[in-house]
Amino acid sequence: MSKKFVYLFREGNATMRELLGGKGANLAEMTVLGLPVPAGFTVSTEACSVYHENNRQLPDSIIREIKKAVSDLEKQSGKGFGDVNNPLLLSVRSGARVSMPGMMDTILNLGLNDDTVVGLINRSKDERFAYDSYRRFVQMYGNVVKQIDKDKFEHRIDEIKAKKGVKLDSELTSDDLKELIEEFKQIYKNEVNEEFPSEPMEQLIESVRAVFRSWENPRAITYRRMHDIPSSWGTAVNVQTMVFGNMGATSGTGVAFSRNPATGEDELYGEYLMNAQGEDVVAGVRTPSHISELKIQNEKIFNEFYDIAKKLEKHYKDMQDMEFTIEDGKLYILQTRNGKRTATAALKIAVDLVNEGMRTKEEALLMLDAKQLDNLLHPTFDVEELKSIKPIATGLPASPGSASGKIVFNADEAVRAGKLKEKVILVRLETSPEDIEGMNVAQGVLTARGGMTSHAAVVARGMGTACVAGCSDLSIDENKGVCVIGGHTFKRGDYISIDGASGNIYGKELKSVPADISGDFATIMQWADEYRRIGVRANAETVNDAIVARKFGAQGIGLSRTEHMFFDAERINIMREMILSSTLEERKNALNKLLPFQRGDFEKLFEVMEGLPVTIRLLDPPLHEFLPQTKEEINTLAKQMGKKPQEIERVIAELYEFNPMMGHRGCRLDVTYPEIGAMQTRAIIEAAINVNSRLSKPVIPEIMIPLVGDIKELKYVKEIIDTTAKEVMQEKGLCLEYSVGTMIELPRAVLIADEIAKEVDFFSFGTNDLTQMTYGFSRDDAGKFLKYYYDKGIFDFDPFARLDEKGVGKLVKMATDSARNVKKDFKLGVCGEHGGDPKSVEFCDGVGLTYTSCSPYRVPIARLAGAQSALRKK
Amino acid sequence: MSKKFVYLFREGNATMRELLGGKGANLAEMTVLGLPVPAGFTVSTEACSVYHENNRQLPDSIIREIKKAVSDLEKQSGKGFGDVNNPLLLSVRSGARVSMPGMMDTILNLGLNDDTVVGLINRSKDERFAYDSYRRFVQMYGNVVKQIDKDKFEHRIDEIKAKKGVKLDSELTSDDLKELIEEFKQIYKNEVNEEFPSEPMEQLIESVRAVFRSWENPRAITYRRMHDIPSSWGTAVNVQTMVFGNMGATSGTGVAFSRNPATGEDELYGEYLMNAQGEDVVAGVRTPSHISELKIQNEKIFNEFYDIAKKLEKHYKDMQDMEFTIEDGKLYILQTRNGKRTATAALKIAVDLVNEGMRTKEEALLMLDAKQLDNLLHPTFDVEELKSIKPIATGLPASPGSASGKIVFNADEAVRAGKLKEKVILVRLETSPEDIEGMNVAQGVLTARGGMTSHAAVVARGMGTACVAGCSDLSIDENKGVCVIGGHTFKRGDYISIDGASGNIYGKELKSVPADISGDFATIMQWADEYRRIGVRANAETVNDAIVARKFGAQGIGLSRTEHMFFDAERINIMREMILSSTLEERKNALNKLLPFQRGDFEKLFEVMEGLPVTIRLLDPPLHEFLPQTKEEINTLAKQMGKKPQEIERVIAELYEFNPMMGHRGCRLDVTYPEIGAMQTRAIIEAAINVNSRLSKPVIPEIMIPLVGDIKELKYVKEIIDTTAKEVMQEKGLCLEYSVGTMIELPRAVLIADEIAKEVDFFSFGTNDLTQMTYGFSRDDAGKFLKYYYDKGIFDFDPFARLDEKGVGKLVKMATDSARNVKKDFKLGVCGEHGGDPKSVEFCDGVGLTYTSCSPYRVPIARLAGAQSALRKK
Repeated sequence: MSKKFVYLFREGNATMRELLGGKGANLAEMTVLGLPVPAGFTVSTEACSVYHENNRQLPDSIIREIKKAVSDLEKQSGKGFGDVNNPLLLSVRSGARVSMPGMMDTILNLGLNDDTVVGLINRSKDERFAYDSYRRFVQMYGNVVKQIDKDKFEHRIDEIKAKKGVKLDSELTSDDLKELIEEFKQIYKNEVNEEFPSEPMEQLIESVRAVFRSWENPRAITYRRMHDIPSSWGTAVNVQTMVFGNMGATSGTGVAFSRNPATGEDELYGEYLMNAQGEDVVAGVRTPSHISELKIQNEKIFNEFYDIAKKLEKHYKDMQDMEFTIEDGKLYILQTRNGKRTATAALKIAVDLVNEGMRTKEEALLMLDAKQLDNLLHPTFDVEELKSIKPIATGLPASPGSASGKIVFNADEAVRAGKLKEKVILVRLETSPEDIEGMNVAQGVLTARGGMTSHAAVVARGMGTACVAGCSDLSIDENKGVCVIGGHTFKRGDYISIDGASGNIYGKELKSVPADISGDFATIMQWADEYRRIGVRANAETVNDAIVARKFGAQGIGLSRTEHMFFDAERINIMREMILSSTLEERKNALNKLLPFQRGDFEKLFEVMEGLPVTIRLLDPPLHEFLPQTKEEINTLAKQMGKKPQEIERVIAELYEFNPMMGHRGCRLDVTYPEIGAMQTRAIIEAAINVNSRLSKPVIPEIMIPLVGDIKELKYVKEIIDTTAKEVMQEKGLCLEYSVGTMIELPRAVLIADEIAKEVDFFSFGTNDLTQMTYGFSRDDAGKFLKYYYDKGIFDFDPFARLDEKGVGKLVKMATDSARNVKKDFKLGVCGEHGGDPKSVEFCDGVGLTYTSCSPYRVPIARLAGAQSALRKK
Repeated sequence: MSKKFVYLFREGNATMRELLGGKGANLAEMTVLGLPVPAGFTVSTEACSVYHENNRQLPDSIIREIKKAVSDLEKQSGKGFGDVNNPLLLSVRSGARVSMPGMMDTILNLGLNDDTVVGLINRSKDERFAYDSYRRFVQMYGNVVKQIDKDKFEHRIDEIKAKKGVKLDSELTSDDLKELIEEFKQIYKNEVNEEFPSEPMEQLIESVRAVFRSWENPRAITYRRMHDIPSSWGTAVNVQTMVFGNMGATSGTGVAFSRNPATGEDELYGEYLMNAQGEDVVAGVRTPSHISELKIQNEKIFNEFYDIAKKLEKHYKDMQDMEFTIEDGKLYILQTRNGKRTATAALKIAVDLVNEGMRTKEEALLMLDAKQLDNLLHPTFDVEELKSIKPIATGLPASPGSASGKIVFNADEAVRAGKLKEKVILVRLETSPEDIEGMNVAQGVLTARGGMTSHAAVVARGMGTACVAGCSDLSIDENKGVCVIGGHTFKRGDYISIDGASGNIYGKELKSVPADISGDFATIMQWADEYRRIGVRANAETVNDAIVARKFGAQGIGLSRTEHMFFDAERINIMREMILSSTLEERKNALNKLLPFQRGDFEKLFEVMEGLPVTIRLLDPPLHEFLPQTKEEINTLAKQMGKKPQEIERVIAELYEFNPMMGHRGCRLDVTYPEIGAMQTRAIIEAAINVNSRLSKPVIPEIMIPLVGDIKELKYVKEIIDTTAKEVMQEKGLCLEYSVGTMIELPRAVLIADEIAKEVDFFSFGTNDLTQMTYGFSRDDAGKFLKYYYDKGIFDFDPFARLDEKGVGKLVKMATDSARNVKKDFKLGVCGEHGGDPKSVEFCDGVGLTYTSCSPYRVPIARLAGAQSALRKK
């Protein structure tokens, strides 16, 4: 028997997605379930491959199969394809395995011609309806099958409306429409040099061919390349009997969800219009009614639909998003799929489905999109209020959360306002480490430059502060104290609001609703923790961060960046003194002044964490990041230090680096200035000893050496730590357990991971830097050229946001294997942006890392992603 | 039987270096050969380990062995240790497996005390000599064994000379010396709180202990850490009977080489002094005589020494560097070792030893230090003239060769002078890519900043231009047209000379002697090629480079950096036009103007190379390197392009990068501007087709894509190349064979090397960038902190000069294995600085790379290193 290429809906089911495409498989499934789906058939994806292999010809055998399926439809419906009295009309839609833009979409009313239109008039008793359907068909066919510009047709409609002196399409009469049909056929003839096909079967075969042809559209090819979809998959074609929602008062059409997609409440949610087609609902000329009205208008249909919705929900075990049409009092279901929902709804539905016994906890956890949780963890604007206000400009949604406040233009203004408990939005061209204090007190940050991984974006995400970055419609004149956003001018102190989840900017103050992490959220988190193996820690250095981290369920701190503690106004100048020291003596003096600050910070951190592990990284950034930039600042500092401004300028020039990311930073600082590492170690050990007496569970600090690339370098710095720790313990007359680990963030560290593992107690993968070095991408610069990589489909994700498993991930795996080969239960973590990305967490779990560490605000995401990973591995 | 720790010289031989140390093993070997070596014994390195394991105590058993060895010496010499009438006197010297500074050196005249000194007077008939020997012994012992400051003793000598009103030590009388001895003993007592030991055996045991103790000196420990010498090796101690060259007119001492170490001529070469000790020769108070004088003064001794020299040379099969002493008319040999020699001498000796049948060709090749060849490949100053002139300052010896010329301060001046055929030295703070034209015409380059791998150094080495870099004694005031070098002020146009091999700078014009690569050099190269497996190519882009490369025996061009072709005055502005284009149209126009230049360059290159392989790399550096820096240049360019200066400034600001090394460069340029790669491919293919008709062996151009990190990125760029190549061939109606390869210079490229190998014809390891990314070191910045790494013994070589086998090398190996796994005979090369470093060449040969490619001037080094590697692997 030869291969089968055409499947009636009743011959398929939901598992045949590869062969029938997504849409076709679901239509078949509903047909088999006995739901009122208009009869139809699917030409399979394999037919598409045959078409392309066969030099873009449809073999006769497939044409024969199609004809056979059509006659089956004729039998089922009692109508005839091309029958003048009772014509069978069809819709043709493409349908690949996955939804794919760029391909041919839909042709409706196929089968109409000058003869069959009469039959439609007879059946519908509505001449205008029938001619409008015919007019639409000619237009759609010409545009979709023959690529005739839509405007060519629309232009003719405008002309006739002008001639008749009417404004709306609906004001055109049957005669106007008949005239239009003839003119449309003429346009068709002019464009493609042949008559418009009146033979229904010719119309159908040409349409099927057109769908297959569209699989090789440039746009479709680009999309496939971008999403790694093999061209061998092909698309299917769905041919279905037309039903009309616009055939009078007893007809109608609508869309509805089986539960509320905004809140998750168990209630039908949707809208419908009587005497209308899907297009009309979308066009928005008439206002649709809420689905609950249907119960009043037609209780029988409503109940029928309600039952179907519940049946589908039970069948698919998930909230459904359905399209329906009522033709002359009879209900048809045209589509169903798992419905999109807000994060709140997703949690409620998942919990409810478990409570209703429809799903297990494991399944419920796997239903959720971990990334979506992000929206729940930050305050949001009031949805109702937003309906009545338009954004004045949009930037990149760099860090979620909503924020309203007065405009300030620099960190100092922000800090001053913060002391007065005023809410502010920090508006800058771009931010730098010097702005951290200001970002910390600001409600939100708005920048004109920089992408999703710019300084502002990364730091704001870490802090959980709302941030809209790279808004090209923003210009700032700090001296005049004004900025222009989307053409509106604002003065210092004026109110604006930003939404870091959408990137929208609003020109006034808006109210925010705080994040709620109790209820369903808490339930899901609790379930997640039952299945999760990989630990979840937070990156935190302030008391505030640490408190948020614990609230969100972090099991410790995986990365505390000590450099962030030096930007405080009081400390930055001591830090600068230290950097500008010309003798060891001077440097030690400055470090001694920093010591109590650091010790105090660590004490507070340890107290909040109450014995949970805390990993503290030694100073990492190049020293020039701490130095003043402007003449003014330099002069002030010079006065303070009793040095000449030129002297300070000379040091700044000396510290200049061509590629600071690969420069004098990380443990290299401790090699050149061992006294820095010694001071930091002293601060850590003293702090731990001081608080331990007050804690029920003692803190065991984990000291982490950054940017290690060589074993002797590591030993050198470790010796500084161990010697200092011993010294402090002798002074205090007390013993303290502590551990020493390294960041693995240079490829060379991976290559000698076995040697390093012998010397230390743990690794933490610094995948930000590791990504930079592995790809040779500077995170600060790559945005400029990576946009071409996305546009051309070379990259389909940002390797700084999602771990590159093939490259960087391979290195993580290599180092993990090397280390565990040396020490079986070696502790391994990951910190950096990837630690809170679900795909990356799954990778880290798969490799067997001990924990992941991420921004406090992403801890719940990591907890859920960790659970999902564990469940998928089962 | 218990273990033996003390070996008489006659019990050892040269193979026992591990046990007896280098010096002890050679003394034993000569003893066994029957040469007149003063009798002695060695306390083994194992005794050193026992001493340290035994809590710094010398076990009695070892002391007993020493005593037994001493009595053997007594028997051999007929003298007695501590014998008042005929005292046996000894020297004690340390001697590890490898020569190691920081350890205890030498004690002479051991065994003297107030009694035995009388015996020495009787034997020498010279009271002054005896007391002076005694005085020296007390001083050495106090200083070396008990660490008493030398100055304490010297100060006393100065006092006594002042008191006596004499200037030279030799003017002191026996009585003066006797007085000094007593005072020295008093100093000793004051310092160590015990009497100076008069018992000879106590003196000896304490000295042996002191040598062992010195193995753990901080300086020795640092040295070991720096050179990876295990502390378990330990040092040996050599105890030897004293012979005196200062015991009257029939005594003397000298050093001599068995052949001329400067020229390699087969003649004794050295100097001697009668009635003198080794110290006197070194002190330079008396002028020694040439060794040939000895033949006249004492033919018997001369002949005896000559025979010994020849015997040793035959025995060690190499030119020997020997120390001898004549005591009272009897010749003693105190040391022999393979002599250091100039590069010229090394070649001549190697060739002569083969011709004399003493060595095989293989052995001769392995005797040579490939690195040393560098000195032969560049012009050098006349050795005679240098003797009478002192350098005014010294910088880093950044690129060998000698150069004299007039001072110019920028590239333009250099180019103008070049057109007038004037010789110039380009003196700059530091150089940048814009200076390349000027560097190319200058005789030499002198910079104030930057290290051995600075831009100036790397480019100059590539060009074979002499360069002294990072001269801290140089300051420049370009506006005034003056510079100050080592305190001397020079005006623009004044003559200076620089020696890039030594780093010396001279304040006047000096004559140079050109490199001679015929004769022995040619013979050695010919032999090397007989054994070498790995291919040797050159990095070259100019005709000049290519000619030098072929002269030095390069088998092709492994790297032609096309960007170097754009800095020419005529082209740089077109290049800038291209970069500043605001439309694709504009950019294509500019590229069309560049096309004939590129094509012309390639044609010339192909013609010189006559069918040898030529690898051309597509544009690599970030575009901002080509842009103007100064206001003036920007204005000029703006006028020329009909744009506003602000517009150009805006583009320059846009192109600014924080870390350009990891920025928009390499194949990333072709992804954003495919038209650049297309133009370059067109130039290459057109050039090859144009010249092929004129060549007997057709050129098969190798097009190389730089900085590949992703397979889709590679495919994208390769498609540009293949499409363009096809286009050109169709236009020309001709076929041309060409190949496409990639640089492997990012860690990620290594990780996906198997995928890449499937797509391309060859790899070339860009180990410069690979080193940068693997270590996270910016080559332009690392010098600043790496100096601490060398100082602290963390690094013992520059990973940019010598391939880091453990890290970067591992990546090279990984990629090689992956690629060869996919394609068995895959072509693999290395280009970059490492390609001309002997150790790195050996590594590449070991890994199985097809070829190495280096600066034309290092091709002979690579040829020899390749041969040595092949021979060592046999």
